[in-house]
Amino acid sequence: MDTDTRIFIEQFGKPIEQLELNLSVDCVLFTVQKGCLKVLLTQPAPKWGWMLPGGFVFKNEHLDKSAQRILQQRTGIAEIYLNQFKIFSEPSRFSFKDFLNALDEEKASYLNRSIHDFPTRVLSVGYFALVDFKALSRIHSEETIQEKTIWADVKKIPNLQFDHEEIIQAALLALRTELKLKPIVYNLLPEKFTMPELQRYYEIILDKSLDRSSFQKRMLRWDIYERLEERREGVAHKRPFLYRFAWERYKLACEKGVNFSV
Amino acid sequence: MDTDTRIFIEQFGKPIEQLELNLSVDCVLFTVQKGCLKVLLTQPAPKWGWMLPGGFVFKNEHLDKSAQRILQQRTGIAEIYLNQFKIFSEPSRFSFKDFLNALDEEKASYLNRSIHDFPTRVLSVGYFALVDFKALSRIHSEETIQEKTIWADVKKIPNLQFDHEEIIQAALLALRTELKLKPIVYNLLPEKFTMPELQRYYEIILDKSLDRSSFQKRMLRWDIYERLEERREGVAHKRPFLYRFAWERYKLACEKGVNFSV
Repeated sequence: MDTDTRIFIEQFGKPIEQLELNLSVDCVLFTVQKGCLKVLLTQPAPKWGWMLPGGFVFKNEHLDKSAQRILQQRTGIAEIYLNQFKIFSEPSRFSFKDFLNALDEEKASYLNRSIHDFPTRVLSVGYFALVDFKALSRIHSEETIQEKTIWADVKKIPNLQFDHEEIIQAALLALRTELKLKPIVYNLLPEKFTMPELQRYYEIILDKSLDRSSFQKRMLRWDIYERLEERREGVAHKRPFLYRFAWERYKLACEKGVNFSV
Repeated sequence: MDTDTRIFIEQFGKPIEQLELNLSVDCVLFTVQKGCLKVLLTQPAPKWGWMLPGGFVFKNEHLDKSAQRILQQRTGIAEIYLNQFKIFSEPSRFSFKDFLNALDEEKASYLNRSIHDFPTRVLSVGYFALVDFKALSRIHSEETIQEKTIWADVKKIPNLQFDHEEIIQAALLALRTELKLKPIVYNLLPEKFTMPELQRYYEIILDKSLDRSSFQKRMLRWDIYERLEERREGVAHKRPFLYRFAWERYKLACEKGVNFSV
């Protein structure tokens, strides 16, 4: 069995009787790296091209669990909270006929099915997360495929399989909407940071520049960032204060219904 | 053929070969009526109990179109913009076995299928809208079933079929989140209204009281409500100004990225 076939079979993960063949999930992981918003792409085998980590749902499996399992199987990344954001249901978005035609004999015989056994429409449920790429825990269990992965700049995405470009664009919208509702940059922040550094995260995610003074006023009004008795040293002519994200204050702010929109 | 059977068959709408039997949509229509937030429920036949207007998706039909079609078929309500908000996928949420067992012989023979022809899991995609019940256009075409419908207070929802109670709770969350992002009360407002009347809509939808002075300040800061040279007469000791929702200003406010959170 060649590597490509092994990967393919592991991708399916289970005998196809145990899969919901009309239902998949796709995971869109965003991070900020070197001043860019990036998205995680995988490549099961060179000839497959880049795609989002996704896969079929097991029968009787909850969708949220599927997303966790599939992300882990395909990338090793575990323990990430994923937000369901949209269903992709365009009738022509995925064709089993094309998919099966692209397979060589060995894989086709593994499937051992006629095209009529496959659904004509495959839905995909999109999940997204904003993560700190440095803090990602990768679990390499026996079930992990460990495909080749890259973090691609969302402004320079290579050609992708299926409708994955559309899924990423919709996930970007969902990410920016979420950032209006919750200060989810807390997923990215180091233990200590300056206000200009915090502002930079917002600007990178929202892809626009923000007014410095009104940004800082707003951040301080929320009262979720605690100013430390320390300053960032080594910045020319300035010694900006350091802050930390104060979870206990954030909890209070949520209870008070603070509006986290920037 | 009894009425109940006719309704059942019209519900299915098409021969079942033309349906995606594992994929349905459910529509949650909200309105404000007599100071309460209400949700539209339908009852196909007395013994079926109350439920949301929903149904199966046709093969090759886009989900957004399905939601429009099904809402119109079951209630006559047309030309409503519906927001997709969540997929309901709990493996046990809908059982064709129970459903078929509950049918009498005539309906069962219409379906003319064994239980093995039906999927074990039926997903439902939830759609919601906030509508002015007075302005709803109802189209009574041949395909319209015109079931019995009620607007039920969201705080006093009768027992519902399937997981429809859960769908309504999730739709409520989605509605309130949407109201933080956009002033969607514009769907409910009469041509002219006072600030206290506007505030009341917000309070009813959010189910909490708001501070009058900061509410009014915020509304005026958005600059989307135009004050008219008219006052509401007949209110004891007060003659509050009337306002209108200014669509042209709203468009500008959106372009400027105004934050519509209350």
